[in-house]
Amino acid sequence: MQALVLEEVGRLALRDMPELDRAEAVLGPRDVRIKLHTVGICGSDVHYFTHGRIGPFVLEAPMVLGHEASGTVIECGSEVANLSVGDRVCMEPGLPDPNSRAARLGMYNIDPSVRFWATPPIHGVLRPTCVHPADFTYHIPEGVSFGEAAMVEPLAVGVHAATKARIKPGDTAVVMGAGPIGLVTALSAVAAGCARVFVSDIAEKKLEIASNLSRAITPIHAIHDDLAATVLAATDGWGADVVFEATGAPQAAARVFEPLAPGGCVVMIGGQSEPVAYDAGAAMVREARVENIFRYAHVFPRCLGMLASGAIDVRPLITRVFDFSQSVEAFDIAASAPPEEVKMQIELPQ
Amino acid sequence: MQALVLEEVGRLALRDMPELDRAEAVLGPRDVRIKLHTVGICGSDVHYFTHGRIGPFVLEAPMVLGHEASGTVIECGSEVANLSVGDRVCMEPGLPDPNSRAARLGMYNIDPSVRFWATPPIHGVLRPTCVHPADFTYHIPEGVSFGEAAMVEPLAVGVHAATKARIKPGDTAVVMGAGPIGLVTALSAVAAGCARVFVSDIAEKKLEIASNLSRAITPIHAIHDDLAATVLAATDGWGADVVFEATGAPQAAARVFEPLAPGGCVVMIGGQSEPVAYDAGAAMVREARVENIFRYAHVFPRCLGMLASGAIDVRPLITRVFDFSQSVEAFDIAASAPPEEVKMQIELPQ
Amino acid sequence: MQALVLEEVGRLALRDMPELDRAEAVLGPRDVRIKLHTVGICGSDVHYFTHGRIGPFVLEAPMVLGHEASGTVIECGSEVANLSVGDRVCMEPGLPDPNSRAARLGMYNIDPSVRFWATPPIHGVLRPTCVHPADFTYHIPEGVSFGEAAMVEPLAVGVHAATKARIKPGDTAVVMGAGPIGLVTALSAVAAGCARVFVSDIAEKKLEIASNLSRAITPIHAIHDDLAATVLAATDGWGADVVFEATGAPQAAARVFEPLAPGGCVVMIGGQSEPVAYDAGAAMVREARVENIFRYAHVFPRCLGMLASGAIDVRPLITRVFDFSQSVEAFDIAASAPPEEVKMQIELPQ
Amino acid sequence: MQALVLEEVGRLALRDMPELDRAEAVLGPRDVRIKLHTVGICGSDVHYFTHGRIGPFVLEAPMVLGHEASGTVIECGSEVANLSVGDRVCMEPGLPDPNSRAARLGMYNIDPSVRFWATPPIHGVLRPTCVHPADFTYHIPEGVSFGEAAMVEPLAVGVHAATKARIKPGDTAVVMGAGPIGLVTALSAVAAGCARVFVSDIAEKKLEIASNLSRAITPIHAIHDDLAATVLAATDGWGADVVFEATGAPQAAARVFEPLAPGGCVVMIGGQSEPVAYDAGAAMVREARVENIFRYAHVFPRCLGMLASGAIDVRPLITRVFDFSQSVEAFDIAASAPPEEVKMQIELPQ
Repeated sequence: MQALVLEEVGRLALRDMPELDRAEAVLGPRDVRIKLHTVGICGSDVHYFTHGRIGPFVLEAPMVLGHEASGTVIECGSEVANLSVGDRVCMEPGLPDPNSRAARLGMYNIDPSVRFWATPPIHGVLRPTCVHPADFTYHIPEGVSFGEAAMVEPLAVGVHAATKARIKPGDTAVVMGAGPIGLVTALSAVAAGCARVFVSDIAEKKLEIASNLSRAITPIHAIHDDLAATVLAATDGWGADVVFEATGAPQAAARVFEPLAPGGCVVMIGGQSEPVAYDAGAAMVREARVENIFRYAHVFPRCLGMLASGAIDVRPLITRVFDFSQSVEAFDIAASAPPEEVKMQIELPQ
Repeated sequence: MQALVLEEVGRLALRDMPELDRAEAVLGPRDVRIKLHTVGICGSDVHYFTHGRIGPFVLEAPMVLGHEASGTVIECGSEVANLSVGDRVCMEPGLPDPNSRAARLGMYNIDPSVRFWATPPIHGVLRPTCVHPADFTYHIPEGVSFGEAAMVEPLAVGVHAATKARIKPGDTAVVMGAGPIGLVTALSAVAAGCARVFVSDIAEKKLEIASNLSRAITPIHAIHDDLAATVLAATDGWGADVVFEATGAPQAAARVFEPLAPGGCVVMIGGQSEPVAYDAGAAMVREARVENIFRYAHVFPRCLGMLASGAIDVRPLITRVFDFSQSVEAFDIAASAPPEEVKMQIELPQ
Repeated sequence: MQALVLEEVGRLALRDMPELDRAEAVLGPRDVRIKLHTVGICGSDVHYFTHGRIGPFVLEAPMVLGHEASGTVIECGSEVANLSVGDRVCMEPGLPDPNSRAARLGMYNIDPSVRFWATPPIHGVLRPTCVHPADFTYHIPEGVSFGEAAMVEPLAVGVHAATKARIKPGDTAVVMGAGPIGLVTALSAVAAGCARVFVSDIAEKKLEIASNLSRAITPIHAIHDDLAATVLAATDGWGADVVFEATGAPQAAARVFEPLAPGGCVVMIGGQSEPVAYDAGAAMVREARVENIFRYAHVFPRCLGMLASGAIDVRPLITRVFDFSQSVEAFDIAASAPPEEVKMQIELPQ
Repeated sequence: MQALVLEEVGRLALRDMPELDRAEAVLGPRDVRIKLHTVGICGSDVHYFTHGRIGPFVLEAPMVLGHEASGTVIECGSEVANLSVGDRVCMEPGLPDPNSRAARLGMYNIDPSVRFWATPPIHGVLRPTCVHPADFTYHIPEGVSFGEAAMVEPLAVGVHAATKARIKPGDTAVVMGAGPIGLVTALSAVAAGCARVFVSDIAEKKLEIASNLSRAITPIHAIHDDLAATVLAATDGWGADVVFEATGAPQAAARVFEPLAPGGCVVMIGGQSEPVAYDAGAAMVREARVENIFRYAHVFPRCLGMLASGAIDVRPLITRVFDFSQSVEAFDIAASAPPEEVKMQIELPQ
């Protein structure tokens, strides 16, 4: 089958990938075969394209990109009970060893043996079909589009972050960073009960998008405004109950405690490539709780439920859609980091 | 000053109550004087009117009714820093001993020495003015009306229940009972992140009001429908993550575990006058957590924040408003339990 | 192989059971074969012997008894990495479907499809050898005997209860019931940080055993003493932070809230055959949290660690040991409920 | 009265301090007057002596040292109900504003307005008598000595840390640092249910003391041994459930995640004077929870209960006792940081 292949750093090709057909010729009893419909472009896809590696994961052979995906079930394994041919679905891209200690404890996302789409050497799903375990494939509710369903993967990060924060209804939150992850986190924080969410970034366009998402969201320009002062002023000097770090920038991460209330919680979402130096005294006098999160676990059905109920609307984040045939062009655009785009998606031919 | 006085069981009078003026002649340094604007009629007010007692609290002398209140600050004690004359406010009706063990632990609502408006022998606030500690008096944000602010007291019960449930974004909940407390609980559950809330009752009119509150709410007729079967069918046989018991009826309370998912949480809100017999085996095989709640603590500002952000809209619950001069008539109507009314309020002359 | 077979209600036989040899002839790749050493007699074994059923589980064919077991690995499946031949081990008797929703969430004990030794129709392990998944087989640390290791199964219930209670160091607890489960719960509560544990029962002998277990334990005679009054007096009127119900008696369960502190936790351990009627008002004014527990999950290694460190010493609970050849006699004695025995065990020939 | 006065950096005097008599001449209705018996020397006392400041707190006038104290009640205010003349007591040295937001939420230790003994400009209690609120004065149980009771203050830090960690019975912990705080943390971790505690330090003598405290404690030489490798080897490659940082050294703090298990918790206890740079990726892949703690709240009675039950024995930590008349000499010795001393105490004349 034809796939979008990252041949090597900086070189993409839309070409036949016969090994995929061979590898997925036989369907396991607990697997489903899926005709892909929509695949979002993630920052990590772009990073492999431009840099060839993320941390310990290094591109050493051609690899298919794409892991934010939705599609339609076209074949079911003999033991699959929860899905049927024709079902619209979205999929978790990471598969743990179900017998690992972490997976058995219910924390499958931190099983070190997880195999994750489009993370070397595992192929992604910018291709017509794939085979996937039914246990990690989720039915899309009526009224939710393929495009929204392909947003569940990034949204899951935000929902997982909001869950770990243990938000209480009426909390005040800060989200540092208004990229795709910052925005899904802001949406998740509002849906999880925050009455006020301050979103900070340096890109005016992103702040404008953020402020249009909800009446509860206040944009903060990270340079022109004083984030901590604004939050303290808005909370009678108390501070934010939760601060989400979604920039991945060490200088932002170093300041997460400034707007935080006594007894508050910081959630570290953005991956940091360098050591983060923080003011330990500021953390201490607030008795801050810090939650470090890694992807997500058990939240896909929760995301789908909230898309269906209208608690979360990701449509304003989908700013551009390409045909599969335009995939290489789409990645060239994505690599230029256009400030007006939040999420770009690719639709496969149906 | 003139007040709505419950003279004895079944007999109300709008009459002068000079002892109130005497008792509140001097303002303490940490108190404020408030001109009342709106006072809601609570089921407990009506119960004292019709029965003269609730549990251990017995009417033994004339008592002013009313504890769901909003108004305007007209005088501030010398040490009050957080409020000014002219501020629109709502008030917590229960005052703990701040030095009690429960209060020092942050659980002031379960301090046995709490003094609560319109709970014998403490006078309520269906009267022109009252004196109250500034620490339990909260500024109403712009855009929130006096009527909505007077709804904060019952809403606080729902928000406290949702907080204790530790709702995770995307949860499924059941609320048993669609009276005022059931409805504020349903609103709170949605605001706290539930993607689906099944509300059950036997009154069609109340279910209709419930279903209009949010797209996430599904009404269930407690007699014609099978609650547990409906919830299980909607959740692939898993059940609801949270079940709120808000009927106060022992036969409902006995069945709270039926629609509950493994590992789920039951929140008991409704006061029960009789022992509740429940199926301990059903609780056990699910490892159910049961949270029993009593009023609320630390949630008034949270409620006001969510009214301001639009996360919660209580306006559909305010179904009828009376003038203070019609107070006796209002209680006569309330005592007849009209099925079309959720919350009736009384406005004081300004 | 020879096994202790419950032929029908009231009739036990030590006889050949060739079907066991056939069923376990082949070892799965992730299984181990174990030569059994010690098997404890549980109240449920005795109950099947005397009544033929527990709740929905009914004896309909001859069944081998015994599920509290330790032994030695004598053969390992091809994929077993964590165990070797010769390892001394103890085993979890309940096996979930690892792909069930509950198991994936980390709560395998409440997977309804769990298959449990000596729960009809699953055979127990009062027999020379058995085959078991390595994932549910645990290495016994040096210094811990086979007899102590065979106590891990009941101890796990107490440790799971103490874990669910979320005991804080210095807490005061009550354990209602001084049978084997009550006593392991008291040991677990002390090990988990309780500074004081009040254990109540009506059997003087059991209370004497309880009071010898730890300086932190105070025995309370459930009839002659007033449990609630004693606990309140010992806590300046505050009450116990945690109350464990381990009697299984509805009349005891009905009173769990009496000695409980505001904001305290009740853990329901004992299985109740009848509906439990409780004072909902007493639960409410304390905002009691109630945790219902069912067996245990993920605690066997924890128990073994605490036996090794000396944090828990179960040896005083092992009051009598029989040879396998005396198994029928041992059950006859157990069925008479001798007040001086806590745990009786059977040793297999080595 | 005579007191141990820090006149300026490096200069101590045992001299009359008439202002103390004047300031405490009148007893408030909720206060008690205490004849001091034992006062421990804390690292912070020594630091003010040698450096004159800790963070923002600067010595600007003569100040009495000492805040780890026990004594006897010699006078009670008119409203004091929980204490009587003659009661042996120990005291919390930090007094919050009971009306602060933090205090009302139950987190009085992080109220910024806390006044703390021997933290400029508040006088400490190395003097014959003091006046203190009864609410922060605790009855010493029978069998607990004045010396042990004066250890409650540092012990409270360890117990608070263990509480925040939410230790589960059978956990494995690491304590980095074997100074007084590290050792009370190790004792607290064992008492709270840890089956194994690895204590690391670079001082052999301190490790020897640590290893004699409990069979559950394993000493690790921070330079000669590989902490992470040792912990991983002891836990089948999984890691420690909890890591306590009690060194206050940035280079130690930077490595707290290395021995930590997936889903584990780090508790930061030691105050850090410099920014701490940590490996954010190591925190992320484990989804580490980090709790930052500041002193303690609500734990004095818990500590006293555990000293009384024998769950914690602090006596091995009290390595040297001085008479009040030797106070200056005692501080000179303390300032030399003798490796063989853990806690030195001063006894007042009785």
